[in-house]
Amino acid sequence: MREKRVILTGDRPTGKLHIGHYLGSLLNRLQFQKEHTSYFIIADLHMLTTSPEMSKEVAKNCEAILLDYLSVGIDPEKARIFRQSRITEIPYLACIFSNFVTVPRASRIPSLKDMMQSLHITHPSMGLLSYPILQSADILIVKADLVPVGKDQKSHIELTREIAREFNTLYKPIFPEPEPLIGEVETLVGIDGKNKMSKSLGNCIYLSDSEKEVNDKVKVMFTDPEKVHVDDPGHPETCPVFIYHKAFSQDHARVEEARIDCKKGTLGCGTHKEELAQILNTFLNPIREKRRVLENQKESLRDILRIGEEEVKKKAVQTLDETLTTMKIKTRGII
Amino acid sequence: MREKRVILTGDRPTGKLHIGHYLGSLLNRLQFQKEHTSYFIIADLHMLTTSPEMSKEVAKNCEAILLDYLSVGIDPEKARIFRQSRITEIPYLACIFSNFVTVPRASRIPSLKDMMQSLHITHPSMGLLSYPILQSADILIVKADLVPVGKDQKSHIELTREIAREFNTLYKPIFPEPEPLIGEVETLVGIDGKNKMSKSLGNCIYLSDSEKEVNDKVKVMFTDPEKVHVDDPGHPETCPVFIYHKAFSQDHARVEEARIDCKKGTLGCGTHKEELAQILNTFLNPIREKRRVLENQKESLRDILRIGEEEVKKKAVQTLDETLTTMKIKTRGII
Repeated sequence: MREKRVILTGDRPTGKLHIGHYLGSLLNRLQFQKEHTSYFIIADLHMLTTSPEMSKEVAKNCEAILLDYLSVGIDPEKARIFRQSRITEIPYLACIFSNFVTVPRASRIPSLKDMMQSLHITHPSMGLLSYPILQSADILIVKADLVPVGKDQKSHIELTREIAREFNTLYKPIFPEPEPLIGEVETLVGIDGKNKMSKSLGNCIYLSDSEKEVNDKVKVMFTDPEKVHVDDPGHPETCPVFIYHKAFSQDHARVEEARIDCKKGTLGCGTHKEELAQILNTFLNPIREKRRVLENQKESLRDILRIGEEEVKKKAVQTLDETLTTMKIKTRGII
Repeated sequence: MREKRVILTGDRPTGKLHIGHYLGSLLNRLQFQKEHTSYFIIADLHMLTTSPEMSKEVAKNCEAILLDYLSVGIDPEKARIFRQSRITEIPYLACIFSNFVTVPRASRIPSLKDMMQSLHITHPSMGLLSYPILQSADILIVKADLVPVGKDQKSHIELTREIAREFNTLYKPIFPEPEPLIGEVETLVGIDGKNKMSKSLGNCIYLSDSEKEVNDKVKVMFTDPEKVHVDDPGHPETCPVFIYHKAFSQDHARVEEARIDCKKGTLGCGTHKEELAQILNTFLNPIREKRRVLENQKESLRDILRIGEEEVKKKAVQTLDETLTTMKIKTRGII
């Protein structure tokens, strides 16, 4: 067993999660919760930084994500699941941290430019520019020392480390300098075969999709355009049908066989798709089953969040108190 | 009696207050607390935006300001005195508001440029750039509709109004659009006769100065340089000795007499200074007396803040809850 660490990771509640999320992050979390102190944040305040008008979707999306988490096997007995908006101490800590980050430093974060470009934002809001600082507060409020992130977020962890270092040097070392854990699994391609699987591109297979939805989506999946006839040789490495097959099948011998057959031209795309649909449904069936049960247990869902949030709140109050005491804003003796 | 309003005003805890503060703001507050619901904020988080390394001074300065408030007659039975740092909901509300302010809009606040210039700051911190947003949260967390400010802060109230308007339009009208109340009393000149009375310039007479300190400071006060001999005609309107005399004497006939005598050359600066020192000490004596008593009652001082902060906290929790409910981040029904 590896050294026990404190991990923080999570999602913006932009909607339900897809099989790309499963491979890229949820799967790792199933391991984390066994080995480490795990905090899984539903980062609803972050969602406001790009679209405050979408706030009415937040509650619904939080529920969808919670169901996704639980149905894939995230265990509230092991991990603390919480909504960022319920921890008042997080924006407070971010407010303190904002004094340690210059405006040019915040503006240099590369993901900010990417986000502005993809969302066609000309003038970022102060919320958007501050968003990596808020993320630093998410991490340091629970004193996480390991943060699984995508490559695009590595610069945020760098900023978090800088803030921790600056605080620790100016006052007293109370914060860890967290390390990023860059996902080992590559981003999953969408069913369009062109782009990363992403809600906004409509190329996703969701963890909550029904059997029929999966079958329909697999049927229209992009396949190798050079493989026109069944017996044309294919390029499985770049074909999403093969990529998903490999990712979601437990039968490695059969995966290898399919790869060879596709290349040889003895496995047609239609047949391969039927096989894939079955594999995906086999993978999704227990997830669906668990979801179906949970969906009707609103009270337990509320309890799961309440318990997670109470525990995180306790830790957050402690960290903020320690922060203010270290800065001598809170003192004993004087008033 | 005028219509009852909700007022928020206060000070950064940069140190003890001087007689310029008394004329410019404390005097008005004595009136406000009688007529309106008054919140007096000791804005300690604001202090960090320009000098986080000074945080160790915050607690001491808060105590000094509280003593200044109470000794001039601010009444904790009538007004709510509180430290910003004790109201976790303020930075949270600021975090939400930051999504409604673009970076160029925040950068255009004129006081920011002034502050950067006077403090020789080349690159502002995100905390400094966000500071008017934090101030908007100070105001709107208690739903103040009247905010007494200096001319230089008028633009902050404009920003607060914009934020309130934008929130009210996007969701539902829950915030007032507060009005600025620009001080009627002019800024008091320092004992150097050149600059506004200001701690950093060392030209202040403090509310907590002893009789000897006042006598010594008055003795070295700048006077009209054209009045070299006792019988030279003076220019009382620009002489700080006359200005203070007029401001702190209750004897208007004597003030008018002194003005005429100074102009005629029948009142020498030395004599006038002796008279002023007496007037200032007469004004300050009851303040000193009250301070002397309070200084040794640490427990009551703590209680005063505790009671004020509990009341503000209650209001703040309410406002934040209403905010999140209005945005539908908190909902009934769904989890």
